[in-house]
Amino acid sequence: MSDRTTIGVGMIGYAFMGRVHSQAWRSVGAFFDLPLAPRMAVLAGRSKERTEAAAAQLGWADIETDWRELVKRDDVQIVDICTPGDSHAEIAIAALQAGKHVICEKPLANTVAEAEAMVAAAAGAPGKSMVAFNYRRVPAIALARRYVEEGRIGEIRHVRAQYLQDWIVDPEFPLVWRLQKDKAGSGALGDIGAHIVDAAQFITGQHLLGVSALTETFVKERPLAAESAGLGATASDAKGEVTVDDAALFIGRMSDGALASFEATRFANGRKNAMRIELNGSRGSLAFDFEAMNELWFSAGGGGFERILVTEPDHPYVGAWWPPGHGLGYEHTFTHEIKDFLEAVATGADPSPSFADGLRVQRVLEAVERSAADGSRYTNVED
Amino acid sequence: MSDRTTIGVGMIGYAFMGRVHSQAWRSVGAFFDLPLAPRMAVLAGRSKERTEAAAAQLGWADIETDWRELVKRDDVQIVDICTPGDSHAEIAIAALQAGKHVICEKPLANTVAEAEAMVAAAAGAPGKSMVAFNYRRVPAIALARRYVEEGRIGEIRHVRAQYLQDWIVDPEFPLVWRLQKDKAGSGALGDIGAHIVDAAQFITGQHLLGVSALTETFVKERPLAAESAGLGATASDAKGEVTVDDAALFIGRMSDGALASFEATRFANGRKNAMRIELNGSRGSLAFDFEAMNELWFSAGGGGFERILVTEPDHPYVGAWWPPGHGLGYEHTFTHEIKDFLEAVATGADPSPSFADGLRVQRVLEAVERSAADGSRYTNVED
Amino acid sequence: MSDRTTIGVGMIGYAFMGRVHSQAWRSVGAFFDLPLAPRMAVLAGRSKERTEAAAAQLGWADIETDWRELVKRDDVQIVDICTPGDSHAEIAIAALQAGKHVICEKPLANTVAEAEAMVAAAAGAPGKSMVAFNYRRVPAIALARRYVEEGRIGEIRHVRAQYLQDWIVDPEFPLVWRLQKDKAGSGALGDIGAHIVDAAQFITGQHLLGVSALTETFVKERPLAAESAGLGATASDAKGEVTVDDAALFIGRMSDGALASFEATRFANGRKNAMRIELNGSRGSLAFDFEAMNELWFSAGGGGFERILVTEPDHPYVGAWWPPGHGLGYEHTFTHEIKDFLEAVATGADPSPSFADGLRVQRVLEAVERSAADGSRYTNVED
Amino acid sequence: MSDRTTIGVGMIGYAFMGRVHSQAWRSVGAFFDLPLAPRMAVLAGRSKERTEAAAAQLGWADIETDWRELVKRDDVQIVDICTPGDSHAEIAIAALQAGKHVICEKPLANTVAEAEAMVAAAAGAPGKSMVAFNYRRVPAIALARRYVEEGRIGEIRHVRAQYLQDWIVDPEFPLVWRLQKDKAGSGALGDIGAHIVDAAQFITGQHLLGVSALTETFVKERPLAAESAGLGATASDAKGEVTVDDAALFIGRMSDGALASFEATRFANGRKNAMRIELNGSRGSLAFDFEAMNELWFSAGGGGFERILVTEPDHPYVGAWWPPGHGLGYEHTFTHEIKDFLEAVATGADPSPSFADGLRVQRVLEAVERSAADGSRYTNVED
Repeated sequence: MSDRTTIGVGMIGYAFMGRVHSQAWRSVGAFFDLPLAPRMAVLAGRSKERTEAAAAQLGWADIETDWRELVKRDDVQIVDICTPGDSHAEIAIAALQAGKHVICEKPLANTVAEAEAMVAAAAGAPGKSMVAFNYRRVPAIALARRYVEEGRIGEIRHVRAQYLQDWIVDPEFPLVWRLQKDKAGSGALGDIGAHIVDAAQFITGQHLLGVSALTETFVKERPLAAESAGLGATASDAKGEVTVDDAALFIGRMSDGALASFEATRFANGRKNAMRIELNGSRGSLAFDFEAMNELWFSAGGGGFERILVTEPDHPYVGAWWPPGHGLGYEHTFTHEIKDFLEAVATGADPSPSFADGLRVQRVLEAVERSAADGSRYTNVED
Repeated sequence: MSDRTTIGVGMIGYAFMGRVHSQAWRSVGAFFDLPLAPRMAVLAGRSKERTEAAAAQLGWADIETDWRELVKRDDVQIVDICTPGDSHAEIAIAALQAGKHVICEKPLANTVAEAEAMVAAAAGAPGKSMVAFNYRRVPAIALARRYVEEGRIGEIRHVRAQYLQDWIVDPEFPLVWRLQKDKAGSGALGDIGAHIVDAAQFITGQHLLGVSALTETFVKERPLAAESAGLGATASDAKGEVTVDDAALFIGRMSDGALASFEATRFANGRKNAMRIELNGSRGSLAFDFEAMNELWFSAGGGGFERILVTEPDHPYVGAWWPPGHGLGYEHTFTHEIKDFLEAVATGADPSPSFADGLRVQRVLEAVERSAADGSRYTNVED
Repeated sequence: MSDRTTIGVGMIGYAFMGRVHSQAWRSVGAFFDLPLAPRMAVLAGRSKERTEAAAAQLGWADIETDWRELVKRDDVQIVDICTPGDSHAEIAIAALQAGKHVICEKPLANTVAEAEAMVAAAAGAPGKSMVAFNYRRVPAIALARRYVEEGRIGEIRHVRAQYLQDWIVDPEFPLVWRLQKDKAGSGALGDIGAHIVDAAQFITGQHLLGVSALTETFVKERPLAAESAGLGATASDAKGEVTVDDAALFIGRMSDGALASFEATRFANGRKNAMRIELNGSRGSLAFDFEAMNELWFSAGGGGFERILVTEPDHPYVGAWWPPGHGLGYEHTFTHEIKDFLEAVATGADPSPSFADGLRVQRVLEAVERSAADGSRYTNVED
Repeated sequence: MSDRTTIGVGMIGYAFMGRVHSQAWRSVGAFFDLPLAPRMAVLAGRSKERTEAAAAQLGWADIETDWRELVKRDDVQIVDICTPGDSHAEIAIAALQAGKHVICEKPLANTVAEAEAMVAAAAGAPGKSMVAFNYRRVPAIALARRYVEEGRIGEIRHVRAQYLQDWIVDPEFPLVWRLQKDKAGSGALGDIGAHIVDAAQFITGQHLLGVSALTETFVKERPLAAESAGLGATASDAKGEVTVDDAALFIGRMSDGALASFEATRFANGRKNAMRIELNGSRGSLAFDFEAMNELWFSAGGGGFERILVTEPDHPYVGAWWPPGHGLGYEHTFTHEIKDFLEAVATGADPSPSFADGLRVQRVLEAVERSAADGSRYTNVED
């Protein structure tokens, strides 16, 4: 293992996503037999002081205060983008043009136009690129896909996906960046709805053809955040307008005829991170809820549902970790993602999900918004 | 108790619904202190032989082979309609005109026009009338309504209702009457979708303003049933067209602004009778699944969900039965329904749900069908 | 069906058990095709007024105020004993000697000596006799036994049984008859512990060889009940000694080498009627909790547990009732019990569980008490 | 953070426990604001080649092939013992005598005598010492303890603990070191039973006064392992005797009068790592199952159980990690343990659980073995 080629990583952003990506870069080599040994070379952030503190805590060797400098560095071969969606396109395109490999947080971009530009850049670049839909690397979700591929549930009739949270139920929760359209692109739709759209398309191997949608903003204005950098921001007296959706519901048809329903909301009191998906097929069914992320429920048809504890050595990713019944957590999905990305970089394979997959999700989100604006009329994703 | 006034009941139909209604008529007096003692006077069915056998087994004193005769009898004050939807309007109107009280299985009728005629007949008649949405009498659902009325979950933001079954997943399952539009009016939509629409409106005290819908018939033709009288019918070689929906999905808005999603399907492999509803409010949430009918899940906001075993003496209907933890079953919902109906008849109160409530559900079903036919466009229920 | 032979039933006691038995006698013929049609002939109770009211409500044709009169009556062929345990032996023996069939509530008696006398009486009598361990007729428990018999879980290694309730956690709950040794024989041990001992022996087809036990009375004295007739009795100021156990724990060995643990308590706050049993075998496992009585959890070994909704037509007893997913309740276990009893009476077969089965449970209870009194020393059941 | 004092760590053993401890040492500083920065200085193992490979993968700077050398090194201030139980005493005592801080895997030792010697060594040493009962650091278990301390469940009546696994159900599973008494001390009893004894004592703040026990070895001999170093060892043709228990059951009394039951087994088919504990108190109850490690079930008395997702910022340890609903995994319990240990070392506080706590557990295990050997007689722990 000591003779593995080292590959330098530069990460931009050190908030929630930066912290979890750092843990993945730090841990991946201790569990997976990798062809490349990642070196946590550079962390970029705007504030020198804060970036230095973050680098020290998270284990990055050096810092930059301008991401443009990071992208140019010779000791950086992989650029990991953990910033809000409004900067994804600019950074990713610059990094790809600089010959770097790019892993970019989701959603790929805030608009379809940006996402298209990123796909174009990726197509012409020597580097590999991946959009970080980490839920694909929940072992239970990867196992669900395997079951579908093996035909265990037959022809899929129904997809039923929900992503339910409750962190902004309180109308006094402040106007953080995730509630501002210019920063976040959309609200629950892009932040968490994107995950269930990608997961549904990933597990089924199909894509959404069209949707009918409703969106809503329940709390129209909120206290301005004294500092809008994180979920934990505190409120001030002044108020500002919430410019994104609080919830989005849509129904649609998948490419092989399945009916699908989706709901993303931050107003489901008591649901903390209920990213749920159920598939019903002609031969069986599968059900998952991230609040119990180590479980996959499988019905072989006829009978009931089996609770599979997805902690067996032959389950996806799991053999690298602990004995059966010793569960994994949220962060492991990122470790798995980076493991797959490093393998793709080493072998020259195309990482999955690609920027094109990210664009496909983006088109769904845009179709949702168009449908909601147009009387929920059925709207084709590809239009 | 022995000096209670006796009231004669005549029931039409003795299949699935007739059997469960009979058990309710037979049991209700032993558990509830009723102002009226029901007498199981007459059972009507077309076949003399079968009706006699059913009457003997189910405990009816006499039979008729023509419901018109039953409706005329002096020893019948209550007419209980347990036939398929296509005959509801004719029977109910005749019974009301004959001065009888009427309890009618759901859906109220197969069309809005029929339902309107029934409401008109009920309005002018001396008898009481009720549509038998029995799920209102699941103690957990009645408790959910109580919690909403008490303000325990605050302003409702989301209604999420599903009714999932799997009994026709097999394409060789025969073309029973429930799969024929002329008999059943619609498929999953009217049979089970009607229940979740009524339950959602009942628990929230709101009504659906409009919907956007998709419907689908996955299996277009099926073997003709040698006999189409029951779910257990056996298949023959000839095939016939399935003229109803296999599944219906719709999203919409409730009268106070909540977003709502509904799904009714008979193709959810592994789900046997998953009639589920979840409400998320500004202060808390409630969740129910009929597959665990003695449980209601309640979140008081902030924390998680409490599993309430709805078997306490102060829970709706429960005090009449067994000690805590000794659950009830499906049939008890009918016993409760008949208890409430008898009390309304005795006191002169209007039973709930009324024919008008049944019409309201019917209008939703019709809006669903119009929306599905019109590109899922948002369709007002009252149009 | 109308030509079935009628058989007269006389029931003694009309409290909790009498009410549920009545519902079973009233309903059984409507659902099961029986060789004998039970006639609810006579109800016996000490108070004429109360017994008359109970008979009117529960549907008994006549009453007696002395059970000895009931036992003599020609219109009674079956005697159903629903009294506290201290009167079981006397009544059952008299009824058997009078040539009646006897169904007797559990525990069979309050002492081994009484139970032995009952077994002896049953052995020499023309009538059939059964002890009413109703939990054997929970469809899920009957299905568990079927799975064990079919070898689906292999050689049994572990039995893990608990019966958890919480109705006397409050020290102000009054001293009802179930808390008095002279009436009830024992406390949690005989009342609910008896059920899990019987269920464990029934499902496994084995019996307990010996036990090591601990018992405890947490609340030593309680307010005297103004009236000690029911669970709902109200408290007075005076206090009396609690003379039975509040909880009993015991571990032991089954006849084929399985290790077994049992716990019966009325002090498990939040557990209402958690009658639970889990079996682990060399090939699989089974788990059940009465608080979700329509579910059986089955592990085929290797994988996880499947939640079987025990509502399919081919599940024990279930075909007589409703479609899949439409669950049964507590009372149905009694209906099933009476159905099996009537069939045994009609065919001349020996009903199960027999008085000898009841005695076997009684011997276990006695061994538990001896072990608890003797330093938890391992105590043979047959000594 | 960069000016924190660095403290050198030397770890002995790199199998399962060594891997998870390494992940904890590697991660702890990135999430917790620690007074000391651990440096992963030295890894000790017998095979130079394997130890070097492990050190490279797990991130240790140097290696030793003799733990005695590690214990002497000046760049090691903390010795982390991850070997089987038979070497714990010798290593720990040597390390303490060398002035090191010691964290030792559980069980503390294979015998009470060894454990006593370790406690004596710890008492006289300048270094801090801790036994690694990691389950105390499951956030849900730490929250359970907090609830007990706050009096939320009142006076405890029942402790019900199980640790159920199934990894040796197959009789062809080889004779690994964990099945050999000279290496492992005992079987399920010491390996997993120790955890539930410690957890029960930790959460309740009480200790076990005495026990009555049964133990069993279901499979008496097994194929010799070609290599007995890990769980994954492969079998050979020769067989050897299993010298430890496969399962242990015991019941007992806690210091404040609660009744307690414990079961540890490796033969519970379908249970992978079901480390479960339930407490019933006079005011409420708590229940936990490690197979759903991010959940704690709490009953406030009267009602049902609330499923608390233990992922809120104010839950123990959780604030350092991810947003609500984003669960943790098995390895985090070790990270929390090391965080607490480092804080104790820095502040001079006594770490918990101490070697004395480990001895207390050891005494319980020994009492279990004595009771099992002596007819399950009730056996005092302190004798």
